[in-house]
Amino acid sequence: MSVSVVVGNPKARSRTYQAATLVAERLGGSPPELVVDLADLGAALLDWSSPKVTDIVAEIQASSVVVFASPTYKGSYTGLLKLFLDRISTGAFAGTTAAIALMLGADLRHSLAPEVFLKPVLVELGASCPTRGLFILEADYAGSPALDSWLEQSRPLLAPWAPWAAAVR
Amino acid sequence: MSVSVVVGNPKARSRTYQAATLVAERLGGSPPELVVDLADLGAALLDWSSPKVTDIVAEIQASSVVVFASPTYKGSYTGLLKLFLDRISTGAFAGTTAAIALMLGADLRHSLAPEVFLKPVLVELGASCPTRGLFILEADYAGSPALDSWLEQSRPLLAPWAPWAAAVR
Amino acid sequence: MSVSVVVGNPKARSRTYQAATLVAERLGGSPPELVVDLADLGAALLDWSSPKVTDIVAEIQASSVVVFASPTYKGSYTGLLKLFLDRISTGAFAGTTAAIALMLGADLRHSLAPEVFLKPVLVELGASCPTRGLFILEADYAGSPALDSWLEQSRPLLAPWAPWAAAVR
Amino acid sequence: MSVSVVVGNPKARSRTYQAATLVAERLGGSPPELVVDLADLGAALLDWSSPKVTDIVAEIQASSVVVFASPTYKGSYTGLLKLFLDRISTGAFAGTTAAIALMLGADLRHSLAPEVFLKPVLVELGASCPTRGLFILEADYAGSPALDSWLEQSRPLLAPWAPWAAAVR
Repeated sequence: MSVSVVVGNPKARSRTYQAATLVAERLGGSPPELVVDLADLGAALLDWSSPKVTDIVAEIQASSVVVFASPTYKGSYTGLLKLFLDRISTGAFAGTTAAIALMLGADLRHSLAPEVFLKPVLVELGASCPTRGLFILEADYAGSPALDSWLEQSRPLLAPWAPWAAAVR
Repeated sequence: MSVSVVVGNPKARSRTYQAATLVAERLGGSPPELVVDLADLGAALLDWSSPKVTDIVAEIQASSVVVFASPTYKGSYTGLLKLFLDRISTGAFAGTTAAIALMLGADLRHSLAPEVFLKPVLVELGASCPTRGLFILEADYAGSPALDSWLEQSRPLLAPWAPWAAAVR
Repeated sequence: MSVSVVVGNPKARSRTYQAATLVAERLGGSPPELVVDLADLGAALLDWSSPKVTDIVAEIQASSVVVFASPTYKGSYTGLLKLFLDRISTGAFAGTTAAIALMLGADLRHSLAPEVFLKPVLVELGASCPTRGLFILEADYAGSPALDSWLEQSRPLLAPWAPWAAAVR
Repeated sequence: MSVSVVVGNPKARSRTYQAATLVAERLGGSPPELVVDLADLGAALLDWSSPKVTDIVAEIQASSVVVFASPTYKGSYTGLLKLFLDRISTGAFAGTTAAIALMLGADLRHSLAPEVFLKPVLVELGASCPTRGLFILEADYAGSPALDSWLEQSRPLLAPWAPWAAAVR
């Protein structure tokens, strides 16, 4: 059983990173097995033959649940996150992976972005997205009431992918 | 266990109706328990106190899996379908219902519509949408290869909602 | 020169109606020439042979600028509005009409809806949508700072369609 | 008067590049003044202090009409293109620039992508998008009938931004 996190913030160890890790931990009851901070990969993401990126893509594909997290840039996910998603084959997640679309923003105006922009890309990769896209305010990600209600609704939906999830509070 | 179908085509017993019923049947291995053809409801859909509509909404809410089907009108789902969806309370499906977004069209240009237009509405109603939005050509809905591969991928994703689904071919 | 308004709120003379009329007036410097309150049409909207609806569609198509306004229902425009849009032919507005997507909501969570849900339908009708989709809070539509900055940006963009617009404050 | 092109294909001088240049030329009647092939910028796009990228952003912002072009990756625009768009300030194009959303794809299934994914980002940058999002098949971009009808409809809509456009065939 494994839950993984991919963080598409150009700044390393960003609030996006903290929030995504928190979501994974509160879902699974323990820290995520794998956290990929794309800020660490840098130019390798532009090198389509990079073995480092290939390895990380393989690890992510082996995960049963993945949180894909991005700050809101120009109303949508970052180019950095999409650069990584572009490296995953179309349909690669089919039958194996549930994906969670998580975005952080300064205000609520882009709350629909995880649902209408990020999720369709994850679906194209073959992922099942059984939970609502999650948008949380970056100023208060930890104490967000939106997060609490999302967790409560999402745990049973992820249970088939990750039996631990339903059992944990 | 129940699978239901809601058809948002202004014409009764339309190709949308046939296709949605077929999808439900191929998913569940037997004809759908409930098929709501919105063409039959007519002006009652505009009457917010209609007991008939209230009853049908209640039946749909009691279903574990619902196929919401629409032809493509102006690039999106029909006003008729949305009129019915507007009668369901926000969040009403939470924890109880998986929804399938199905649209038929004359060509492939609006293939993204179930994913980017219809699914976000179903999510707003609280439904889980674990499967890819399904778009099929109305000229050949029954023999659609898109339908076959969608069914293969979708059955296991709906299994937690409808144990029959995984067992059937 | 003409500016028109179409209001898709099931309640007649709604806040959506007031807000849309205000937007048209502040854009044009005088009350809109034509305001269609779809709540008044009722069941005629479900009758595809209704001459009344046909006449109104023709009037709207003869307008150079149209404000299409809706409250937010289930995260998107209403079924009532879409019912009317479904009566307009694909491409009917091409070369003749600029359309403005306006939605009102209780909070900011669906701010993207006019841009990602309503505009693509208007584009399918052939309309040019040179301005940003406008979302305003229904509690304070008249004093909305979002409205002021939108008007300032939008007037010059509509000037080619409506020479009065650029000249008015 | 100036028309510019930004190409978000990881491969230099790609078909996306050829198609975007053709669109600009057929719109303006002469080759585009500026073509930015993002494949040439490489890792500089990940360096937020790169003066080279800053200069190119400034040139693009000084353009009155910009074609933003991308191949379809995972159903949407590329990470490479978004990386560049992330470098432009929110609202930077307001009052100065009309943007054209152009995407190429292998089949028609993602035809809505320029409209629902790319345009909302360009609008966030402040651009006016008076024309329909353009999706063309990469196998036949030059002879595309979709391109011909798009050009005919789009020229008058861009005329306020680029007086040459309306005069050219």
